[in-house]
Amino acid sequence: MKAIGIVGGVGPSAGTDLANKIFSHTKAVRDQDHINLFLTSCPSLIPDRTRFLLEGGEDPAPGIQKCMEYLASCGATAVGISCNTAHAPEILGRVKVPEGVTFVNMIRQTADFVEKVFSDKENSKVGLLATLGTLRCNVYDKYFTEIVKPDAEVAEAVHDAIYNTEYGIKALSGVSDKARQAVCDAVEHLKNKGCGVVILGCTELPLVFNGSRKYFETDLVDPTEILAMALIRATEPDKLVITEPEVISKLDG
Amino acid sequence: MKAIGIVGGVGPSAGTDLANKIFSHTKAVRDQDHINLFLTSCPSLIPDRTRFLLEGGEDPAPGIQKCMEYLASCGATAVGISCNTAHAPEILGRVKVPEGVTFVNMIRQTADFVEKVFSDKENSKVGLLATLGTLRCNVYDKYFTEIVKPDAEVAEAVHDAIYNTEYGIKALSGVSDKARQAVCDAVEHLKNKGCGVVILGCTELPLVFNGSRKYFETDLVDPTEILAMALIRATEPDKLVITEPEVISKLDG
Repeated sequence: MKAIGIVGGVGPSAGTDLANKIFSHTKAVRDQDHINLFLTSCPSLIPDRTRFLLEGGEDPAPGIQKCMEYLASCGATAVGISCNTAHAPEILGRVKVPEGVTFVNMIRQTADFVEKVFSDKENSKVGLLATLGTLRCNVYDKYFTEIVKPDAEVAEAVHDAIYNTEYGIKALSGVSDKARQAVCDAVEHLKNKGCGVVILGCTELPLVFNGSRKYFETDLVDPTEILAMALIRATEPDKLVITEPEVISKLDG
Repeated sequence: MKAIGIVGGVGPSAGTDLANKIFSHTKAVRDQDHINLFLTSCPSLIPDRTRFLLEGGEDPAPGIQKCMEYLASCGATAVGISCNTAHAPEILGRVKVPEGVTFVNMIRQTADFVEKVFSDKENSKVGLLATLGTLRCNVYDKYFTEIVKPDAEVAEAVHDAIYNTEYGIKALSGVSDKARQAVCDAVEHLKNKGCGVVILGCTELPLVFNGSRKYFETDLVDPTEILAMALIRATEPDKLVITEPEVISKLDG
């Protein structure tokens, strides 16, 4: 039997957000129609990814490894990690995927999705908002021919909107006006740099837009939602629901 | 190390709702402040509880048992089930809690909470909305001196608001106008029967009120939220946050 595994907890809300996006993309009219799923939410095992990458903080790889093993032992066959920064090769490159498990890489899936859905858009230039760890370790770069990053000052404002212990999204488990403003300004900034598509490359960022896929004329891409769809495809593909006809035709094409 | 386990999947959104309520009641300014948590969401292992209780459907107890064992093997020390009907003695009575695990009973916790917080309210008569399985198998009765249930017709309308494959909350993973109307009418009906407090005794029902704890003058009780607080108390009690001063003083009293 196939089952989905989520290495969550980084942050906690990102793991349940991924699970909920899997549920909402599943063809189901009763509980039993849903795909079996396991979630580990063990932040104490997985130290901060950006701190490890940029400041020599504690290593998150062993904890991610442990969580993958928990998920495999429960019977998960397709596993994803609901954290962009954890996909840095410096971290993920040292995690051994357990036998019998397919690892579904959120960044690769996002790149495939953007290529399929947006490459024929008039302005298909792609921008990226993310933590400083994801930006500086080039987590997205190798999957794209070109990806536009924000200038240093804007990048730091976005990082702060995620991490600040007073008004940051992680601290509040919600979005303060100050955090919202910083992220919206950053989308605007990427638009001014010529981007027609912006990847919200940290699981906290889609919360700012409350599920919306557009900010003025800019298309917003939520890697968590793309990972949700990919995990359904990797387990019970017949159950995948995509509500936007335009997206369906392009993904199937 | 202590960790929370959730037997979820029944329905899927109820499991992540419980996890999110745990996160929002946890004192945390960074990921690592959160309590480690494991969630199983395996609806295919846990057949419908009401169908088993009332129509001789497949037995959900072995699947619940299996999920508890998964959670124990990952290291969960305090486990809850995010389904009211599963707490029926006919089901839960045959589940053996694994060694090293404390089972936190959502119904008992709800009864304690209602007693502490509402017993000095002018009208503290308690009503219950739930599935037909929970109502007919007296899941709540043994924990209360008196609990008011809706008349048959109203009870069936609420059950339908949960289960109907066209407009029910389980089918839509959301609340249709028709389902909302049926549940609001049922609260009104219990109020007319003299209740000042109404327990939303199915994990789907709090979705109708979108986190609100009042419906006109009636106090609404969400057992999922109470279970969330109890699971924090059972693992890392110092991290429990309750935002309502009135509730804090009564719980501590």
